[in-house]
Amino acid sequence: MSQPPAPAEHPVDGPSPRRSVEEHRRAVAALLASAPASPAETVPLSAALGRVTAVAIASPVDLPLFRNSQMDGYAVRAADVAAARAGAVVELPVVGVIAAAAGEVAPLPPGTAARIMTGAPVPAGADAIVPVEDTAAGADPTTVVVRRARGVGEYVRERGDDLRAGTELLAAGIRLSSRHIAALAAAGIGQVAVRPRARVAVITTGAELVAPGTAPGPGQVHDANGPALAAAVTEAGAIVSVQSRVSDDPEALREVLDAAAAVSDVILTCGGISKGDFEVVRAVLEPLGAWVGSVAMQPGGPQATAVHRGVPVVCAPGNPVSAQLSFELFVAPPLREAAGLPAAARERRTLTRELRSLPGVVQLLRARAVDGGRIEPVAGPGSHLVAAMARADRIIEVPAEIDRLDAGDEVRAWVL
Amino acid sequence: MSQPPAPAEHPVDGPSPRRSVEEHRRAVAALLASAPASPAETVPLSAALGRVTAVAIASPVDLPLFRNSQMDGYAVRAADVAAARAGAVVELPVVGVIAAAAGEVAPLPPGTAARIMTGAPVPAGADAIVPVEDTAAGADPTTVVVRRARGVGEYVRERGDDLRAGTELLAAGIRLSSRHIAALAAAGIGQVAVRPRARVAVITTGAELVAPGTAPGPGQVHDANGPALAAAVTEAGAIVSVQSRVSDDPEALREVLDAAAAVSDVILTCGGISKGDFEVVRAVLEPLGAWVGSVAMQPGGPQATAVHRGVPVVCAPGNPVSAQLSFELFVAPPLREAAGLPAAARERRTLTRELRSLPGVVQLLRARAVDGGRIEPVAGPGSHLVAAMARADRIIEVPAEIDRLDAGDEVRAWVL
Repeated sequence: MSQPPAPAEHPVDGPSPRRSVEEHRRAVAALLASAPASPAETVPLSAALGRVTAVAIASPVDLPLFRNSQMDGYAVRAADVAAARAGAVVELPVVGVIAAAAGEVAPLPPGTAARIMTGAPVPAGADAIVPVEDTAAGADPTTVVVRRARGVGEYVRERGDDLRAGTELLAAGIRLSSRHIAALAAAGIGQVAVRPRARVAVITTGAELVAPGTAPGPGQVHDANGPALAAAVTEAGAIVSVQSRVSDDPEALREVLDAAAAVSDVILTCGGISKGDFEVVRAVLEPLGAWVGSVAMQPGGPQATAVHRGVPVVCAPGNPVSAQLSFELFVAPPLREAAGLPAAARERRTLTRELRSLPGVVQLLRARAVDGGRIEPVAGPGSHLVAAMARADRIIEVPAEIDRLDAGDEVRAWVL
Repeated sequence: MSQPPAPAEHPVDGPSPRRSVEEHRRAVAALLASAPASPAETVPLSAALGRVTAVAIASPVDLPLFRNSQMDGYAVRAADVAAARAGAVVELPVVGVIAAAAGEVAPLPPGTAARIMTGAPVPAGADAIVPVEDTAAGADPTTVVVRRARGVGEYVRERGDDLRAGTELLAAGIRLSSRHIAALAAAGIGQVAVRPRARVAVITTGAELVAPGTAPGPGQVHDANGPALAAAVTEAGAIVSVQSRVSDDPEALREVLDAAAAVSDVILTCGGISKGDFEVVRAVLEPLGAWVGSVAMQPGGPQATAVHRGVPVVCAPGNPVSAQLSFELFVAPPLREAAGLPAAARERRTLTRELRSLPGVVQLLRARAVDGGRIEPVAGPGSHLVAAMARADRIIEVPAEIDRLDAGDEVRAWVL
């Protein structure tokens, strides 16, 4: 315990500016949107999964590339096998085998058939494929008996019937999954222009913090927020540019912020924005024009935003549950949108039991989904209940004007 | 075009064994389940996101680690401030400042207060925290005026009230997300035993294939399946151990299979299992006891399974859409389950228009969700329509016994 503080440091300094959750959500979204857009990045197809197309992509080729067979069977002229429709025996000389392989294919002479494999080029002159199931061996080993007639175009895949060269294969803004990779590969596109991933710095502050895996001394705790926010940034489709833990030393924080700003699109800080005596984030950023205030939510009231060297800074409170929920509410939605990820699902469920909520603030209660469309709050509202948060799979969002809900009442919940 | 085939190669060789989709699904799941389980892997917390806990994890410490303050304010004895409840002015000498920081904390003498920060250790003797908002500066700079009484335990977080040392922090089989990382970090756990990721080899076959980015010659096409299946394996939570493309040469395939078996838990092959003359996968695996047959589905009929050097082999047909849908139906579910990922969502929607379906087979139609819970088929049923597949966001699954559906009929669809 140190000496009593000097009077100038007494922290009772009037009410801080207050915002609703919705106001702060909009403010953070606008702040993040104000960052200059980075140029598109070109990645090989093997690294494109989960990335988002920067521009619309036209196919450079027709798909299919050439007229080819849909079946293993025989390429014929439909007219040459039409008699099989009336029950006649149609036997044709087999003039060759066309494999799905490199090589030019000779035209099919009238009155003949060519054995053909799925995907192989249909020879000029042929206009139908008789599937192998509709044929039999001929009397002569070099002939085939066609037991069923096929009309013009049957089992023939025409060049370009999937997509014409020059037309749009993929729109801009598509998050690439395996089926998009398939289409790009089929069109021979080996690399693709994608939106850059947002680079997000994660800076946790607090003289009490030690790294997980290190034994804490008296008064020390493990830094849960650094690893948790780094993971949350990754979940939101962004990449962690810097992960730093700093004590309550303004000079050290300033240096970390400077280094982070040089390589990041967004800086997240955690802790140091409340009403204590050692609010290092506040001390560094407030003189530079940061908004430091309170959002009508529990947990997670103290919040701040700033711009440092041109980079948006979003400051979450240091309690681990507050930090996680602040990230999910304010930072994850714009990051997910930029990454082409869907917003976290919201759903309506009915409460298994009554609950009370602090009036005037949006209360965020950890909960678990239960059968029958119900939801059960887990543990209390404390912002330190990090193990209880890990057991939750939903967050119940109780609006500010509600202070009490009964069992069976419908609530809105996010899916974690 | 080569010479006509010798009679012994004539491919009409009787009906192949036939399975329903459900039978093949069970067969593939059983085959994959038969592979020996790999031992758990230990990863640092920074690499644990998305991994699945191999065993239940107990917290080695109490959470919180020590009794600490929930607020910025003053640590007091509740009895010393009780008079404020009746409107009396309670002014206490401030004996020190307790930061959230390393260091031992001296006991609080009776009749005094200690300024305390959120998360800082509550001194012995103190049993309540008065939030700073409920205080004012005293007449003397070394005193504080308490304006509101607080009862025993208020704003005090007791040691272990989130979780006791030795009790379960996370169950086995949990897919780690940021909130689990937070809990592990808070408990000081720096590394975690996770299930190994399934190592899956992707082998595409076909003499016609060239790599995306390479210009195809006559008869050649780009290999869409290799990149697509590698991406699909990744989406299913597994890792690609080998990605190879081989021609229709049995010896080359045998070498690739041997190499893949040495480093893989599962081998996927693509192409070469149908009724053509150059069915390389069939040629290599059928003599070794592979099941090669037909599944009552369209697209994707030809399917095979085998075991090569003790490693399960699942063989998909080579048409790109068939390959993708075969993977999603048969291989993705067990891989996703092993990776702790949820199964692909299934939903019910109503058709925008009538459609016809081949009787006797499960038809898999590419489609897009439309407003109002409706669904619109896109393009035709052709298994080569890889660009149309990329435009789809749902697959309509039409049961084998149904050959016609009307606009407004309800169908079952998977979400891609």
